[in-house]
Amino acid sequence: MRIEVLFTPAEITEAAVKGKTVAVIDVLRACTTIAFALSRGCSSIIPVASVEAATSLAASLDKKVTLLGGEREGKRIDGFDLGNSPAEYTAEIVKRKTLVLATTNGTRAMSMSAGAKEILITSFVNMGSVVSHAAGLDEEDFTIVCAGKNNRFGLEDAVCAGMVIDRLCADREADLNDGAQAARGLYRQNEDSIAALLRECEHGKYLEGLGFGGDLQICSRVDSLRILPLVRQGRIGRPRKPRKK
Amino acid sequence: MRIEVLFTPAEITEAAVKGKTVAVIDVLRACTTIAFALSRGCSSIIPVASVEAATSLAASLDKKVTLLGGEREGKRIDGFDLGNSPAEYTAEIVKRKTLVLATTNGTRAMSMSAGAKEILITSFVNMGSVVSHAAGLDEEDFTIVCAGKNNRFGLEDAVCAGMVIDRLCADREADLNDGAQAARGLYRQNEDSIAALLRECEHGKYLEGLGFGGDLQICSRVDSLRILPLVRQGRIGRPRKPRKK
Repeated sequence: MRIEVLFTPAEITEAAVKGKTVAVIDVLRACTTIAFALSRGCSSIIPVASVEAATSLAASLDKKVTLLGGEREGKRIDGFDLGNSPAEYTAEIVKRKTLVLATTNGTRAMSMSAGAKEILITSFVNMGSVVSHAAGLDEEDFTIVCAGKNNRFGLEDAVCAGMVIDRLCADREADLNDGAQAARGLYRQNEDSIAALLRECEHGKYLEGLGFGGDLQICSRVDSLRILPLVRQGRIGRPRKPRKK
Repeated sequence: MRIEVLFTPAEITEAAVKGKTVAVIDVLRACTTIAFALSRGCSSIIPVASVEAATSLAASLDKKVTLLGGEREGKRIDGFDLGNSPAEYTAEIVKRKTLVLATTNGTRAMSMSAGAKEILITSFVNMGSVVSHAAGLDEEDFTIVCAGKNNRFGLEDAVCAGMVIDRLCADREADLNDGAQAARGLYRQNEDSIAALLRECEHGKYLEGLGFGGDLQICSRVDSLRILPLVRQGRIGRPRKPRKK
């Protein structure tokens, strides 16, 4: 098995994603929020790359069962129903709804990975489900795309990628690219302090400054949800049961 | 002092380099080769982004004192005088010559950092000179651009960036971006095994496969040259004496 980690969407090449299983990581907060929304009964999520795409798509859907969510600069977009805080996505609000989601980095990384066979939405909260699924890939290549922030390296996503690799490689050999080697090393330096890492990384500090300190706590809870959101044909459907090891 | 590390040229923004002191790192091999060429008496190096730019520039210069150097896919370019091995750049060949240099990643990173106040050519071999100079910046911002490989993260450049930071921060506080934090962590994991790192990283393995294993040894010798190549107005001149601490 070859595992490649790309630290920003700018590192994506067609060869890295086309026909492959790709994990997209955006710990703060799109991927965590998606895991929460689906866990709370949201029936379908459509990730889009821009605010304009979100509003025009939502206009074509049934208003009664459609929600608009997302952020720009971390804040809820004017006129949208929801922002990008996992805690907003309660069962009361999202159950049986379709969510159109536009975030700055996470949903963009998903769009740019569109050639993949399947895209696993990955964060600390659903780590176990992602690793179980990836463990079933056997000799297939596996690419991990970190969303980063505005095309810059983000430490929290890199450490999360390293955790996937560290668990996957606990009982198998894998060929790692430089990004994967580095991610694993960074995970090992931070494995006992994920919550502190989320408070201290650049994006965590920024969110704390906006009053989203509570989100950092939620996003740091490793394995708190058993769910595997998968993007297929541009839509994140209800999760199927994670493949057993 | 704020220190930012960008792991690939794709992370460069105008704000990150404009008017700032920028260190460009390409351990394997452009920055190491430049340090060698200047140490051996080369009078001036003009880094260019493409083979075409190199040949047309060289045609406008005095043939007797001009050398064409560089690589594509690690190999010497057809019709060029020299490749990208530091060992080729002996005093006999380069003394009092102007070198036009085209490499895939290093000289491209320099072109993309063109808005900088000054660009420090950085590698393991001239680490001490770069750190002495950067230590004199006091409260100025300092940006480190890793050349990487084909816009991908390269572990050897990241570890080299981390070494700059680790030395700089030995006796001062600095505000580090996520890339700088990660680079420092990666350096600390590899500080006792730089030569092994260069053999094991992706680009090192590739060069070894081409028969350039000897270059990896040369590129791993920390502080073996006391030289500070500086790009100013598109040209890497004879180095001035490194600023004293």
